[in-house]
Amino acid sequence: MKIGIIGGGAIGLLTAAYLCNRHDVTIYTRRLAQANLLNRENLRLVRHNGERTVPVRAVPLEEAQIDADVVFIAVKQYDLPHVLENSHRQWPPEATLVFLQNGMGHLRWLAELKQENIVVGIVEHGAFKQDDRTVVHTGIGKMMLSVFRGHFGLAKQLFHDPIPRFFIGCEHDWRDMMTKKLVVNAVVNPLTAVLRVRNGDLLRVGPYQEMMKLLFSEVRSALELNDGEAAWNHIVQICEKTAANRSSMLADVERGRKTEVDAILGYVIACGEERKVPTPLSRFLFHAVKGMEGRE
Amino acid sequence: MKIGIIGGGAIGLLTAAYLCNRHDVTIYTRRLAQANLLNRENLRLVRHNGERTVPVRAVPLEEAQIDADVVFIAVKQYDLPHVLENSHRQWPPEATLVFLQNGMGHLRWLAELKQENIVVGIVEHGAFKQDDRTVVHTGIGKMMLSVFRGHFGLAKQLFHDPIPRFFIGCEHDWRDMMTKKLVVNAVVNPLTAVLRVRNGDLLRVGPYQEMMKLLFSEVRSALELNDGEAAWNHIVQICEKTAANRSSMLADVERGRKTEVDAILGYVIACGEERKVPTPLSRFLFHAVKGMEGRE
Repeated sequence: MKIGIIGGGAIGLLTAAYLCNRHDVTIYTRRLAQANLLNRENLRLVRHNGERTVPVRAVPLEEAQIDADVVFIAVKQYDLPHVLENSHRQWPPEATLVFLQNGMGHLRWLAELKQENIVVGIVEHGAFKQDDRTVVHTGIGKMMLSVFRGHFGLAKQLFHDPIPRFFIGCEHDWRDMMTKKLVVNAVVNPLTAVLRVRNGDLLRVGPYQEMMKLLFSEVRSALELNDGEAAWNHIVQICEKTAANRSSMLADVERGRKTEVDAILGYVIACGEERKVPTPLSRFLFHAVKGMEGRE
Repeated sequence: MKIGIIGGGAIGLLTAAYLCNRHDVTIYTRRLAQANLLNRENLRLVRHNGERTVPVRAVPLEEAQIDADVVFIAVKQYDLPHVLENSHRQWPPEATLVFLQNGMGHLRWLAELKQENIVVGIVEHGAFKQDDRTVVHTGIGKMMLSVFRGHFGLAKQLFHDPIPRFFIGCEHDWRDMMTKKLVVNAVVNPLTAVLRVRNGDLLRVGPYQEMMKLLFSEVRSALELNDGEAAWNHIVQICEKTAANRSSMLADVERGRKTEVDAILGYVIACGEERKVPTPLSRFLFHAVKGMEGRE
């Protein structure tokens, strides 16, 4: 089928690299230079045991008339408003849109879209963009999709045709799925960024684990989690599985880039306000990460 | 007069260096090696515009029978119990004891001492110990003393005989004086240590200043400060005056040393508990600093 991928970041390139052997994939980039580079030199996928080059088609988003059955929107939440602005012009009404953002603040925007089939997804792969045509796949995870409105449409094919090292599964309850990911991001990302430690250190260093418990307890109240114990166990599991990894937020502050703290802690703080639950630690960390952005 | 200085750290060496031209000074060190070095090679005082060598007498504390009119106790709060243990054997009952620790948790120990004249002091100099016989005087401030019990005794002479670059003044209310210093230490030290920034960055970077306000507001409630505005202005003033400095807590975590976080935030947390004032940020930062100790 025809697949469009909006966004030439790590997740966009990774998704393109794995899907383009089976499907007709087009990457829509923000910058013309990246599209030109991808068309001229192809996409490069690097894994620990080697690399391969994948021919791909790329088009700058600005001038594109998107023609696809399934469109993955793989930009950060803070870039999403720009992408959604001209959405009606850009994609065919019958296409299934798959949104891959962290956080949950953007879901109210999706509710306003005219599109019939809207899917949200979470990505548990480790990946970073080495340069405009190269993505490094550092940790094999999975991509889980869930229907936010309508149905999967042609995106259903993705489940029936498994790709090695790039499993795509489906979840029944989009809210559960997104919340579970948000809780991990809200606890692990800001702490690792502010303390400048790897994910595993949050478990290994006693006082850091205490911080994690205090923050988790606050996030749990703000989001009114039903099963706190399961959520905590999930965090511990993720920290164990990704012990040697630097979180994306840590990587962002280390490179002086904008982080996703608005989408993540900003959402927790807003939920707390709505429910009259105080969120002193989230606010404190929010300012800490904001202060670190662009300073390295 | 005869002055004893217990502690061969930055403050002990600095005090010895400035007082020993006018008085008969003995430094009591924890380690024999430091005492031997000081006796053999003398004390070195380094300033930005030069240095001088000061002959000094040093004795290991363990074997000392202290003979002095005024005894400065210039060890960190966490080393104070060890010094106080054998205090009766070690210093003459008529001596004035001057305690120079940060924090306020140790004041209840002082109340239990048999000594008649007990003075507490705060040190606003910038100084660090370069090696066992060398102290670098990086910022000229002052030493303020206040009577905790009894009277100044012979320590009064210190006010009448001013020493260039080492002003010693007296304050009427020891509690006010110590609290004012504690508030600065509780806000500036942990934030600079965790964020790894210089004192001035807490004012210069907007989100860091927000963190400082949130933490200050909590400390203010926990300590029941009467004049919050004055306390806040004092913090701002200190950050401006020491903008280029690394706080002692930042220096400690950078060198993997034990910090004074127990004496400082530990005391704030204990005050909050006593007054049923929640101190989530102090607790959070307490764990952060504890986790950073010994990790660099």
